[in-house]
Amino acid sequence: MNNITSYVSKNKERFLSELLELLKIPSISADSAYKNDVLLTAEFVSESLKKAGCDNVEICKTEGYPIVYADKIIDSNLPTVLVYGHYDVQPPDPLNLWNSPPFEPVIKNTDLHPEGAIFARGACDDKGQFYMHVKAIEFLISTNQLPCNVKFMIEGEEEVGSTSLAGFVKNNHEKLANDVILISDTGMIAKDVPSITTGLRGLSYVEVEITGPNRDLHSGLYGGAVANPINVLTKMIASLHDENNHITIPGFYDKVEELSLEERAEMAKAPFSLEAYKKALDIDVVYGEEGYTTNERNSIRPTLDVNGIWGGYIGEGAKTVIASKAYAKISMRLVPDQDWLEITNLFKTHFESIAPKGVKVKVTPHHGGQAYVTPINSIGYQAASKAYEDTFGKTPIPQRSGGSIPIVALFEKELKSKTILMGFGLDSDAIHSPNEHFGLFNYYKGIETIPLFYKYFTELKMK
Amino acid sequence: MNNITSYVSKNKERFLSELLELLKIPSISADSAYKNDVLLTAEFVSESLKKAGCDNVEICKTEGYPIVYADKIIDSNLPTVLVYGHYDVQPPDPLNLWNSPPFEPVIKNTDLHPEGAIFARGACDDKGQFYMHVKAIEFLISTNQLPCNVKFMIEGEEEVGSTSLAGFVKNNHEKLANDVILISDTGMIAKDVPSITTGLRGLSYVEVEITGPNRDLHSGLYGGAVANPINVLTKMIASLHDENNHITIPGFYDKVEELSLEERAEMAKAPFSLEAYKKALDIDVVYGEEGYTTNERNSIRPTLDVNGIWGGYIGEGAKTVIASKAYAKISMRLVPDQDWLEITNLFKTHFESIAPKGVKVKVTPHHGGQAYVTPINSIGYQAASKAYEDTFGKTPIPQRSGGSIPIVALFEKELKSKTILMGFGLDSDAIHSPNEHFGLFNYYKGIETIPLFYKYFTELKMK
Repeated sequence: MNNITSYVSKNKERFLSELLELLKIPSISADSAYKNDVLLTAEFVSESLKKAGCDNVEICKTEGYPIVYADKIIDSNLPTVLVYGHYDVQPPDPLNLWNSPPFEPVIKNTDLHPEGAIFARGACDDKGQFYMHVKAIEFLISTNQLPCNVKFMIEGEEEVGSTSLAGFVKNNHEKLANDVILISDTGMIAKDVPSITTGLRGLSYVEVEITGPNRDLHSGLYGGAVANPINVLTKMIASLHDENNHITIPGFYDKVEELSLEERAEMAKAPFSLEAYKKALDIDVVYGEEGYTTNERNSIRPTLDVNGIWGGYIGEGAKTVIASKAYAKISMRLVPDQDWLEITNLFKTHFESIAPKGVKVKVTPHHGGQAYVTPINSIGYQAASKAYEDTFGKTPIPQRSGGSIPIVALFEKELKSKTILMGFGLDSDAIHSPNEHFGLFNYYKGIETIPLFYKYFTELKMK
Repeated sequence: MNNITSYVSKNKERFLSELLELLKIPSISADSAYKNDVLLTAEFVSESLKKAGCDNVEICKTEGYPIVYADKIIDSNLPTVLVYGHYDVQPPDPLNLWNSPPFEPVIKNTDLHPEGAIFARGACDDKGQFYMHVKAIEFLISTNQLPCNVKFMIEGEEEVGSTSLAGFVKNNHEKLANDVILISDTGMIAKDVPSITTGLRGLSYVEVEITGPNRDLHSGLYGGAVANPINVLTKMIASLHDENNHITIPGFYDKVEELSLEERAEMAKAPFSLEAYKKALDIDVVYGEEGYTTNERNSIRPTLDVNGIWGGYIGEGAKTVIASKAYAKISMRLVPDQDWLEITNLFKTHFESIAPKGVKVKVTPHHGGQAYVTPINSIGYQAASKAYEDTFGKTPIPQRSGGSIPIVALFEKELKSKTILMGFGLDSDAIHSPNEHFGLFNYYKGIETIPLFYKYFTELKMK
């Protein structure tokens, strides 16, 4: 593949300024107050694909936020790669912890990124990463080096469960037909240690509501005499883990894939410093399921975490009240071969069963998805591996991620093709957190590596 | 005492409209955003005392909100009654549960109040109740029937722990010298069952903060591998009660006054319907400390309740985050002879001791006060009893309240005088809750009853 590095360095400034414009739009899909911004972002994405030289660019309406489609079909005899990404972002709160406004991107140098990193919500997850693909196709089309057919599907509901995507994929098998799916929405082990994500955890996200008395009560007049929904909620949540941090929901572990000691030993070879990990988070000890290492706990083991809790008086000062209701958002990360719908039902049944008399319980499922694993002997994996070797000079390490991209399992089911996760982010990018950022090194490296995937995938496929 | 009923009925409309004006000012002491409103309310109170005919009306500056003082000294040989009340109110949230805006008072008829009730924050607690005293003195002065000396001390920080009052009382022993203290900030058993509160619970109110990782984390990448501050907080709070709902803080019960079976039998005679109680709250069972009745649980037993809890993402939709911090506001109701400072320290020590490794704990005491009991053989109690007999035609029942008026214990310590709690509110008034209200019947009855207390107290004292 000729002069890709020179093309990137020649266009560095423009590639960056275009991404900064994209990052300025607060496309927060979880909060309906930002509806117009999310829609504006879809417009921006379709425009950028047109400018890159794609055909059939289309903003496809859905029940929720639109899906942007585009393609470049050069020869029906050549393989087709479907690129997936998402243009929506996580809510930025807590805002007070950001050193610069989340939607006013700035370039700052850090110890890890002396050449600079882009600080903004969505910089890495996933605006920065899907935009690498837009710039990669621009290079391939403008230099007449596109080796295969490429399709783009960029959605706006990934951070809220890709609600509309399932229907879209089900109804567009032909339009989305492909030989492999390529996604950059994950990370590498380190800046100089490329890796390919071969596994993703599934997810079940629920919201619970506990109702006690029919109104808020004076804690002096009623304290001690009626069930306090907040106290009850804490007892119920606390009971979901035993003293070894195993999850106590009956049947929760029944279908969990147990890895062999060999596989676990293989995983353990990935470079990892527990001291650095603790130092980065400013914690004195790690905490988790007995019998597993930190890297196992956040990749091959299922978990249950409260993502939010609220009830009663949470303002300034003191209010002596017993709240009528208490709430929590709870998510479970799942592994092969747990079924997210089955786990959601197990949770609901169990949580309702442990409620004491005197309160009412409501469990509302939010969204979820299945776990996923890619075999490392597939053509797609091999092509990705060779692409990284060319640009990083190192063979990438296969790794399981703790995160979830629920739609990956859906793609395999509906489109019958495997997904390759070529991520260029880093754990330290603080995605979903204040001060999310994405290294300029990673951004440009991604743009250089992606075209090579197309090249090697086409070669291996046409053999 | 002559023509008090006729005076009240002649001035009904004015007595009401004046109170409604007072209720329109949002004097929320817990929220600094309402500072000016709280100060305006102090002005309003001092003006109303002047109009009522009081002398030496003064808005006394403090570190916090001012204390309004006024008096009417007619003869130094006559006994002196000190009236205490508070012009600040609880925060009104949750606002969406109010049927009419909390600071736009309206009169509505209810089954219990066919002649109407005033719906507004502070209607009963305590604006409506202290204003009865302002109207009572107006009657006594304007008709030349004041039988004794009267002093007023109306503060603006009762709902946030009366922070400045202690210092004010300590520094003004002479100014506040009195033979008995009279407070209307409690309730009666029922509209037709007058009662006098002989006991109050003490209070210790604290705020706790749990800190885990130094930033919010992605629950996929870190879930299961680090201590989640919210999960940890729920475990810690859950452990504060055992399976019998006894509080597990070591030493918590050491100084609790155990009532004799005779005393408990006496208490049990107060009219009470558990069915009606459950129906009013829309709960199927009551819940509390093993071995005690509902009325004992909320009066003679100490309790621990979470008044507020928050952490993580509590907005619309879903966010897969592990919060860096989680918080709770926790209050303990205390009984004789627990010392609130000692209990606060016991809580702090215990709560810090049960924190698992991997998190940091901060316990911040908010405020508190001692429990209190009034002997029913005192002159003050007898005078109040006779006053109720005249206006209700029934002997009032002595009862212990679950609420706290921390300064009552302080008054006895500093001013060496007992406090009589002549409350005219009802449990159903929903104080500290949405739709707080105060019956017009109760308001006018209070204005008629208070002057009789002055009369009988003076007679008994001068015997």
